Amino acid sequence: MSKSAQEMTTNILEPAQLSAIDGYWRACNYLAAGMIYLRSNALLREPLQPEHIKQRLLGHWGASPGLAFMYVHANRLIRHYDLNALFIAGPGHGAPGVLAPVYLEGSYSEIYPNMSEDEQGMSELFRRFSFPGGLGSHCTPELPGSIHEGGELGYSLSHAFGAAFDNPDLIVFTAVGDGEAETGPLATSWHSNKFLNPLRDGAVLPILHLNGYKINNPTLLARISHEELENLLLGYGWVPVFVSGEDPADMHQQMAAAMTHCIEQIRSLQNEARAAGVANRPRWPMIVLRSPKGWTGPKTVDGHKVEGSWRSHQVPLANVRADPEHLAALESWLRSYRPEELFDDQGRLVESLRALSPIGPRRMGANPHSNGGLLRRPLRLPHFRHYAVAVESPGQERVFNTRPLAALLRDTMARNPDTFRLFGPDETTSNKLDTVYEESKKLWLAQRLPEDDDGGELAPDGRVLEMLSEHTLEGWLEGYLLTGRHGFFATYEAFAHVIDSMYNQHAKWLAISDQLAWRAPIASLNLLITSTVWRQDHNGFTHQDPGFLDIVVNKSPNVTRVYLPPDANCLLSTADHCLRSHNDINVIVCDKQHHLQYLDMETAIIHCTKGIGIWDWASTDQGEDPDIVMAGCGDIATQEALAATAMLCDHFPDLKIRFVNVVDLFRLTPPEEHPHGLSHRDFDSLFTVNKPVIFNFHGYPWLIHRLAYRRTNHANLHVRGYKEKGSINTPLELAIENNVDRFSLAIDAIDRVPALQASGAHTKEKLRDMRLSCRHYAHEHGVDMPEISAWRWPQRPSR
Amino acid sequence: MSKSAQEMTTNILEPAQLSAIDGYWRACNYLAAGMIYLRSNALLREPLQPEHIKQRLLGHWGASPGLAFMYVHANRLIRHYDLNALFIAGPGHGAPGVLAPVYLEGSYSEIYPNMSEDEQGMSELFRRFSFPGGLGSHCTPELPGSIHEGGELGYSLSHAFGAAFDNPDLIVFTAVGDGEAETGPLATSWHSNKFLNPLRDGAVLPILHLNGYKINNPTLLARISHEELENLLLGYGWVPVFVSGEDPADMHQQMAAAMTHCIEQIRSLQNEARAAGVANRPRWPMIVLRSPKGWTGPKTVDGHKVEGSWRSHQVPLANVRADPEHLAALESWLRSYRPEELFDDQGRLVESLRALSPIGPRRMGANPHSNGGLLRRPLRLPHFRHYAVAVESPGQERVFNTRPLAALLRDTMARNPDTFRLFGPDETTSNKLDTVYEESKKLWLAQRLPEDDDGGELAPDGRVLEMLSEHTLEGWLEGYLLTGRHGFFATYEAFAHVIDSMYNQHAKWLAISDQLAWRAPIASLNLLITSTVWRQDHNGFTHQDPGFLDIVVNKSPNVTRVYLPPDANCLLSTADHCLRSHNDINVIVCDKQHHLQYLDMETAIIHCTKGIGIWDWASTDQGEDPDIVMAGCGDIATQEALAATAMLCDHFPDLKIRFVNVVDLFRLTPPEEHPHGLSHRDFDSLFTVNKPVIFNFHGYPWLIHRLAYRRTNHANLHVRGYKEKGSINTPLELAIENNVDRFSLAIDAIDRVPALQASGAHTKEKLRDMRLSCRHYAHEHGVDMPEISAWRWPQRPSR
Repeated sequence: MSKSAQEMTTNILEPAQLSAIDGYWRACNYLAAGMIYLRSNALLREPLQPEHIKQRLLGHWGASPGLAFMYVHANRLIRHYDLNALFIAGPGHGAPGVLAPVYLEGSYSEIYPNMSEDEQGMSELFRRFSFPGGLGSHCTPELPGSIHEGGELGYSLSHAFGAAFDNPDLIVFTAVGDGEAETGPLATSWHSNKFLNPLRDGAVLPILHLNGYKINNPTLLARISHEELENLLLGYGWVPVFVSGEDPADMHQQMAAAMTHCIEQIRSLQNEARAAGVANRPRWPMIVLRSPKGWTGPKTVDGHKVEGSWRSHQVPLANVRADPEHLAALESWLRSYRPEELFDDQGRLVESLRALSPIGPRRMGANPHSNGGLLRRPLRLPHFRHYAVAVESPGQERVFNTRPLAALLRDTMARNPDTFRLFGPDETTSNKLDTVYEESKKLWLAQRLPEDDDGGELAPDGRVLEMLSEHTLEGWLEGYLLTGRHGFFATYEAFAHVIDSMYNQHAKWLAISDQLAWRAPIASLNLLITSTVWRQDHNGFTHQDPGFLDIVVNKSPNVTRVYLPPDANCLLSTADHCLRSHNDINVIVCDKQHHLQYLDMETAIIHCTKGIGIWDWASTDQGEDPDIVMAGCGDIATQEALAATAMLCDHFPDLKIRFVNVVDLFRLTPPEEHPHGLSHRDFDSLFTVNKPVIFNFHGYPWLIHRLAYRRTNHANLHVRGYKEKGSINTPLELAIENNVDRFSLAIDAIDRVPALQASGAHTKEKLRDMRLSCRHYAHEHGVDMPEISAWRWPQRPSR
Repeated sequence: MSKSAQEMTTNILEPAQLSAIDGYWRACNYLAAGMIYLRSNALLREPLQPEHIKQRLLGHWGASPGLAFMYVHANRLIRHYDLNALFIAGPGHGAPGVLAPVYLEGSYSEIYPNMSEDEQGMSELFRRFSFPGGLGSHCTPELPGSIHEGGELGYSLSHAFGAAFDNPDLIVFTAVGDGEAETGPLATSWHSNKFLNPLRDGAVLPILHLNGYKINNPTLLARISHEELENLLLGYGWVPVFVSGEDPADMHQQMAAAMTHCIEQIRSLQNEARAAGVANRPRWPMIVLRSPKGWTGPKTVDGHKVEGSWRSHQVPLANVRADPEHLAALESWLRSYRPEELFDDQGRLVESLRALSPIGPRRMGANPHSNGGLLRRPLRLPHFRHYAVAVESPGQERVFNTRPLAALLRDTMARNPDTFRLFGPDETTSNKLDTVYEESKKLWLAQRLPEDDDGGELAPDGRVLEMLSEHTLEGWLEGYLLTGRHGFFATYEAFAHVIDSMYNQHAKWLAISDQLAWRAPIASLNLLITSTVWRQDHNGFTHQDPGFLDIVVNKSPNVTRVYLPPDANCLLSTADHCLRSHNDINVIVCDKQHHLQYLDMETAIIHCTKGIGIWDWASTDQGEDPDIVMAGCGDIATQEALAATAMLCDHFPDLKIRFVNVVDLFRLTPPEEHPHGLSHRDFDSLFTVNKPVIFNFHGYPWLIHRLAYRRTNHANLHVRGYKEKGSINTPLELAIENNVDRFSLAIDAIDRVPALQASGAHTKEKLRDMRLSCRHYAHEHGVDMPEISAWRWPQRPSR
């Protein structure tokens, strides 16, 4: 089934074409090497001297020639077929091999005029590469055409698929490094081909680059048998075409044949499906490019093999400033590209080669899909008020918090049939978001069975993407957003940690993009964290981890947002805000289970807009200075804080309690630290400057201290939260274990209000007894006492 | 190459054997269902009534029958071949299917006598399953025989390989769920077979369980063609044997034939290699078991297909207490196993079936490898003093911090040739640990090329494991430790986040294990975080992330340890301590680059033992009350704090400065929060109760506040650290961007000492100018000023 390009029609390139394409590639390789080494004498007009060499040699040569090789061959196809194409460099640390053709096609200089297409510009490009304040040695956001930095390895294919979704005529050329291919996220992302609908989606053409080595080791895929590799790729559902060798002329012919074959094949598979109107699962073609690492670089250095070895990973000749032999080797290496044939007197690529570049937005460094904000249109959103839960009076009714949101997402999907998708790892129904299936089902292109029709909710044109790989989903979503579309990802709280590092990298990408005027803002990444720590009745301890927020808050305040809506209306209001925002990462924490509802929609909107506020109906301070502030942040945390407040009111009718709820977590931060930070004056007026505050938090309690340690009243801030005490527990029992339950909170309050320290002793005793009874009941019956599970806010008239 | 078990010699089981094995399996299935449903009437001696049913039905039925099927067939082989075997249940949430045979073989009751092998014990088992305070619905640490909980999916195979390493006669039966198989970590861990040495390692027999469904979806691997699946597994280097069907009698014969074939094949491959003494890479066999999800459970419920559908994932009949039809269906389901034939009057498994269990430690629930602490022997460690760096005077010489450690690890490897391994993702040399190759090289069993002999450092018997998958490495290491051995994992700081979730799960496992008297302590997981945020000169922003510590500190204080040794001798002392410890996760942060050395070995030992202390030689307070405390935690942070201190001394000779260095991060925490927490009195005596403290930290600054917010002098604690300001920077420039540089720290100090607020204005101006010049120099030359790079502690005589 697979093919070797050597067996294909060879000599697909006419001699002149071959010579031109090789010239273009040599120009790329020359530039790539120049970036690593040269601070001056960019065109080698003079004999190379130590003073032409950078003081510090930094950069990655190894992957560069191969990446440039792919790019140049992609260019040929773009021109030939007028393709709309992107280039993704999985081994993004081979940036010189991408920077070079992006510069040669003119895209780079358009954005950065000081790196103009002439000798001065070339010098500047060289000088600023891998130099303080200059160009990164990865495909950073600063690189036009890049949507994938490749600093952390493993996400090239999932990003590529995200870009291809709903872009029917887009082709994403995707260089997959053989180092990267060893990572888990990459290994499973080959299966993305089961989620690409040939009717409405574009195509991904993976080019697995077997250059054989990582930093210091061979790669696994380069050292298994040809048969094994072929089986593996066929098994992943791809049809590989093998391009293998090192002689440039031969390799150009092979690559041209392989690329032509693949594009023809992609077109034919697409045409076939589109003509029939049937979304099948084609066996898409791909390329395996086996070429030497550091190809065309020095063969040996100091007696060691360098080309075709891990020794070419970074700087092949390390000692050029001090060692005349190294310097001579560098000069002969650089001159081997014959720069004088490639660049004219001004230092600009000669006209005959310039003719090989695609034109305008067809250049991969200027394709608008790679600057997706340019294509982004705001979502057409339904009025979120329409989905409101009726709340006559606070804390009386229970609703599944995520169900109304599901209806909002359903209708959002209906209004944005080509630009909005929902992502989740096998959990959309579990997370009570299945109402979306009324509009669109789960995408499924693999085999179907008759029983799937009974509630399977599968469809070849579904817009809900489920695969049991948070990595792949996150990668798809990022690729989708980076190319100008919108999405929503719902996942179990504990397993959000699976994508901690992907969150980190996307946050860094956004933080840099924010500073680049030419990068138009993209839609925010919206992440609903549900199935939370407090409701893991049978999954137990492994599923209890609210620490994703501790990762989130480390990143740039310009992009990080965290919301903990306490009920369904607040969730709707928050989600609406998030779906409209851009260049942020919005993390919404809200449990999927049946929970008390507190705010009617109008109140919810005001509350969520402020992000933090006093709930008058739960307060007894009547605007006066309270004796104590009770605060809740998160659904369960708020419920328990309210229940504690109710008990305190019962027992101490004269106690002045203020109840505060926090939705927008960053309101707690000082305004100099985060744009959402509440002013110190407002913070003090909410939390007082000297009264005890019992703060019940959804997550690890110390996060609140980390955010609020600079606040005036911090010394009186007593935070409760999850502290890794868990097992198979009933909801209340788990709360008790971690002291976030109503009884413990009430006891905390009594302990901290000076006036109650004597008078409260008896009540504390009673609360402790009640806590114990609840525990016993749970251990006896396996469920919480009915009066606990059915607890409601007592509707005590506010005094 | 692959086989179908149907084509093999069938009827491998005699009728009596078949009947017995099916009986044993029925007993397992009966128990598994009983656990989910029954609170009493465990043996169905009475007609089933609603009151016999648990109030809340929790548990996972779907995967259970398949897991029990594998377990029972593994038992047959254990007896037949006297195998030394473990069982790993990838889909650990099918715990009933593992709990059942562990109980039936008697292992369970030995540990938990109240769940005895009789009716009362069985009732107790049922009652306590998935019940508050009881047995988890995963293969938790409480389950004898388990080294893999399976709460978070993806690590079954890597754990299995870790267990098999250096256990030449061990066989690890590993159930891989087809849901789990979609995760990235699992997808790449199939390649672990390239790291299994048939001479010295045991074998892993994966059983890919294609039961076809996840929570609500089909699985990918069950819905690709047979040919694709076969190709995929062959491509991964395995030889699959397919077992497929649903008729129990037929399936028992197929499975028995497949298992026999695989064990024979494993033995033959091992014998062949061992006879020849050559470590090749065999194509190991594996099994694909295609059987219905919820096998033998209700076929349909309320008109919906349940057996063979995602609907059997958890509780197939949900409404048995209220719906008489459901109750009747449950009764007929339970009775279909004919419990009266399986259990005797006492409720004990009948003798004829008991004969099928392996004996004593051959039982997989009692195999000592699954309670690895029993087998653990302390490492034979060389004297770490032997590797000391000579430090005549503090802060004069530079050394690569990790090089002396490498020598210690090399000699540790030499002294523990079968129980110690080093793990790293393609970075051992990059992390300057390559001295270990003098003793043992990198394990490589895939293809070798002639150039590998030139510095490739590869060997078939290497004990350094490198693969570009942090997930796989971490999984191997965990499996290795859990079976009683020792290891050390070195990784790039930023990409430690790739395994955040694995860290979380292992920490939870250890926290629970700590409470189980019968689980003997295992060696600590030692993680060296290097190539840190402050030295990413060309990798830039994506490689700058010191936030792994923020994840670490969330977990149980009983298992979390964080050390930041400032120099090579402190690193040696710390590493020695960590290698001797048990049941902890030791995270050591130390950069690999050339760094100043401060402490001679004896001083380092004392300092590291205290974990925090005053450096007199860098202090000018002479034991008096200081004007200011300067503190450093981490190598670069300490260097910059010292340089700031030196400048302050120059400019303000009368200023009384106390210099504090922190190695053991948890010393900062109150003692009630962490066993390493310094007493409040000691903390106050170090940091004063009212003097300004300038604390320069390696990581995100707020982590220090999170740890120290309860300390008396917290209000005066001014912390500097990484705050996501980075790009391509020189070391000093990056420090300046984040205000952790010497100039910024000195300015911070001047700002905070009341006596200097007027007199310091001029100095501040000067420091600002110097900071600016340094920046300009870096931007001009691409490197830091030589006097910065070569800075030394000025050896000022202490006053």
